[in-house]
Amino acid sequence: MSPSQNSATPRLLAVDWGTTALRGALLDGAGRVLEERSFEQGILLVAEGGFATVFDSCFGDWGRAGAQRCLVSGMAGSKQGWLEAPYCPCPADFAAVAGALVAVNAERLALPVAIVPGLSCVHGDHSAGGVPDVMRGEETQVFGAMQLAGVRDGVFVLPGTHCKWVTVRDAAITGFTTYMSGEFFALLRGHSLLAKSINANAPFDDAAFAAGITRSRSGGGLLHNAFGARTLSLFAHMDAAALNSYLSGLVIGEELRAQANAMPDSVILIGATVLAQAYQLALEQYGVGSRVFGAEATWAGLHALANTPDNV
Amino acid sequence: MSPSQNSATPRLLAVDWGTTALRGALLDGAGRVLEERSFEQGILLVAEGGFATVFDSCFGDWGRAGAQRCLVSGMAGSKQGWLEAPYCPCPADFAAVAGALVAVNAERLALPVAIVPGLSCVHGDHSAGGVPDVMRGEETQVFGAMQLAGVRDGVFVLPGTHCKWVTVRDAAITGFTTYMSGEFFALLRGHSLLAKSINANAPFDDAAFAAGITRSRSGGGLLHNAFGARTLSLFAHMDAAALNSYLSGLVIGEELRAQANAMPDSVILIGATVLAQAYQLALEQYGVGSRVFGAEATWAGLHALANTPDNV
Repeated sequence: MSPSQNSATPRLLAVDWGTTALRGALLDGAGRVLEERSFEQGILLVAEGGFATVFDSCFGDWGRAGAQRCLVSGMAGSKQGWLEAPYCPCPADFAAVAGALVAVNAERLALPVAIVPGLSCVHGDHSAGGVPDVMRGEETQVFGAMQLAGVRDGVFVLPGTHCKWVTVRDAAITGFTTYMSGEFFALLRGHSLLAKSINANAPFDDAAFAAGITRSRSGGGLLHNAFGARTLSLFAHMDAAALNSYLSGLVIGEELRAQANAMPDSVILIGATVLAQAYQLALEQYGVGSRVFGAEATWAGLHALANTPDNV
Repeated sequence: MSPSQNSATPRLLAVDWGTTALRGALLDGAGRVLEERSFEQGILLVAEGGFATVFDSCFGDWGRAGAQRCLVSGMAGSKQGWLEAPYCPCPADFAAVAGALVAVNAERLALPVAIVPGLSCVHGDHSAGGVPDVMRGEETQVFGAMQLAGVRDGVFVLPGTHCKWVTVRDAAITGFTTYMSGEFFALLRGHSLLAKSINANAPFDDAAFAAGITRSRSGGGLLHNAFGARTLSLFAHMDAAALNSYLSGLVIGEELRAQANAMPDSVILIGATVLAQAYQLALEQYGVGSRVFGAEATWAGLHALANTPDNV
């Protein structure tokens, strides 16, 4: 270990810059979090050409206080972001991603900044074009969770607006599948016929959620089952509070049903506590076990990427 | 045939009063359409207590000119409508619906008006409550199409915001399934991540629609396949115009996939021309034939209901 990796010293500025949020952590040489910050400064709120300024105002002091390098994962590497970092095609291992970091050239930055590329894969018949799939940010979380869990193989599930099911073989991401579950839920709850039947502020209801998962397994499909959420309300069989969790169960259950043919014995879940707990409940109905990691997976992934020369 | 059924004389005022539209036809004693009208006066635009006034302003002259009776089908019979007509439970034949008409009491009306009730059925385990399904207006269209097609058995498909698949056995509606296909399409096209990738005004594209149907059969599910519409655009594999029909194919294809285990050799489609033609294309991929009826099915259904005493 070089002197600069002394665990008392700030070393890496780890940043997760997504569509709606900007989060950063100051890590020491051992990857421990010294300080964390978050801002409502997702890339959609940053004016063109304004990324360096926002970055400096949020994290510049950390650079001037001793962090030697910054890695940024997430949508900051998209066309609409700070600097486009082309997708790495799957299968992609740790070295492939670490070797494809894209350096940001900006004079005013207090320290060197690089963007972590996302990954792409293709579903269906590749020779006929197939249908691409993409992620930005989740690859870093998966690499971090691999480190934290000490595994080189497995299925990683990252719930959210666009949930990812990621397959890892021999420490490489071999492929993944995106489900727009979070976005469908938000559309149905906020903008569909169901909106006026649902109390969107209701606390999570385990039983109603489980009933939604059960219903999703009937084979009727979400296009049909979502209408059932409306009729259950119409006939006063379910109240507005329970309907919130029931609909969530219908949507997440639909995702699990699509995955059912490729369901492993256990998965690693990476995500916020409440949502991860909902997925745990849902997976239990399929007899699938799970371990959960949160934001620490991102920091662990960025730490590992920053230390690649030492790791190889 | 009674004198009042003379085919030269206006006899029945047939009205289809839906959520967003109000349509009426003046029929002679043989059920022939003498005149048609439509208004953008769906029930959502009518103030409470204002239905009789709107009705009179739209159709009062037809009543005063000799129509002897008016039947109204559609959402006018819902809680939010003119007068609530309780759902008839399935199985429901023609006589059951004709016997459950609900008369409107309103002094100012130029002729007697009655509301046609909708139907309900239950999916899943009835003893455990099950999940209800409902329709209002489609039952009249199905009864009408049965008359026009001269059939007493079959599967009737009514595309739209909430598409209905209706099973008829021995001239009774034995059950039906609702799919929120039209609403999902509108939500995805107008309010999701996909909105900015799609040209919603593009003309129907047969090949792109068929590609969407094909993709839907892969088993990945709409939550996943809808994201593929985004990535096909991202990688410039499909343009904004084609994407409109591709997404339509994904959604309608998802509906057909859910129905695939109960797919008949042929169906009767009831709906507007463009949408019915899209469904015909989709059904062809499943080897299912179809015949199409339009608005005339509603008028035929209301005519038949109005003439029940003569028919029995």
